[in-house]
Amino acid sequence: MAFSGSLALSTKGEGDIVDITEKIQENVRSSGITIGICHVFVIGSTAAITTIEYEPGVLQDLNRALSVCAPSDITYAHDSRWGDGNGRSHVKAAMVGPSLTVPVSDGALVLGTWQQIVLLELDTRPRRDRHLLVTIIGD
Amino acid sequence: MAFSGSLALSTKGEGDIVDITEKIQENVRSSGITIGICHVFVIGSTAAITTIEYEPGVLQDLNRALSVCAPSDITYAHDSRWGDGNGRSHVKAAMVGPSLTVPVSDGALVLGTWQQIVLLELDTRPRRDRHLLVTIIGD
Amino acid sequence: MAFSGSLALSTKGEGDIVDITEKIQENVRSSGITIGICHVFVIGSTAAITTIEYEPGVLQDLNRALSVCAPSDITYAHDSRWGDGNGRSHVKAAMVGPSLTVPVSDGALVLGTWQQIVLLELDTRPRRDRHLLVTIIGD
Repeated sequence: MAFSGSLALSTKGEGDIVDITEKIQENVRSSGITIGICHVFVIGSTAAITTIEYEPGVLQDLNRALSVCAPSDITYAHDSRWGDGNGRSHVKAAMVGPSLTVPVSDGALVLGTWQQIVLLELDTRPRRDRHLLVTIIGD
Repeated sequence: MAFSGSLALSTKGEGDIVDITEKIQENVRSSGITIGICHVFVIGSTAAITTIEYEPGVLQDLNRALSVCAPSDITYAHDSRWGDGNGRSHVKAAMVGPSLTVPVSDGALVLGTWQQIVLLELDTRPRRDRHLLVTIIGD
Repeated sequence: MAFSGSLALSTKGEGDIVDITEKIQENVRSSGITIGICHVFVIGSTAAITTIEYEPGVLQDLNRALSVCAPSDITYAHDSRWGDGNGRSHVKAAMVGPSLTVPVSDGALVLGTWQQIVLLELDTRPRRDRHLLVTIIGD
């Protein structure tokens, strides 16, 4: 059995990290699937999905760490060609990835107490149009 | 068809990398599923799952590389707030991710000869209580 | 329902990034599955799968970013032990990961306009033998 839902949200721009756990959970409940997997995917190339403890300190630490690989003060070939100014956003998004799969048991997501599902907004400007697809597969 | 199994293991603490391939393989065999996917997920926010050649040299190299983004000698906002001392563990775990999916064919995992499924222990202390869920979906 | 396909391709060696979106799309069409997920997995430990805008500038930027964590001018324990010279390839592959899952809707992959599925060749030599498995699960 496959169930497909979607999620739209707006973000405050670069470095914004949004806790989407409860919204994904609602999709799992709507699916009626009790055992299986829940796949979360963000459409677009300047955002990413992962899990983290949703606590302001560690969110700040994660943003700092991503900037080690893709700092804001170097020249990006992407920006030189297209003038987008968000070369670093694309790089961070490709490294973390657009996709996460979480197990479903007893009709609910299985996560640690301090483990939330988050969208990382990596683009340099606020986005009103973040679209995610949520697919639940199982019995 | 969806089959759900679990795995409990203990780790030696920061930098310990455990080869879990055979234990995942056993779950695949138990499922009776011959074609599909096998999803592995670690519950908690200071560990991660990936694949690597299980050879001591390259495991050491991976730990070094993760420390470039999240070194042990800087201050973490997570630690300043909570005094946990494992801010870097959370950061590395969020970057690598808690989840891996591997194809199943002829009733077995499909992997390269030098490609093992591993749990990365990123927490600063040994953990006796690492729990993983293994979900196999297919026919 | 589970459908399994495969993909073979050759690469030009380190830093080569191959757009495999259309070939994955063909597998989705062949499967006849209209709603579900499509899982892409590269067999081997020196390549990775992710999504990115397939534009030469940003591909170059991504390669640079990965080299921050795994530069070519340091000594790797893997290379000291085995003389392979591709310690950095293994490290980058483990960080990005061998696996990607993309939603399927109306019988097609769901991706952003500037979001392509790519194979990252991270090995230090050209590879004629990259094998990927594509598994589509759904209804």
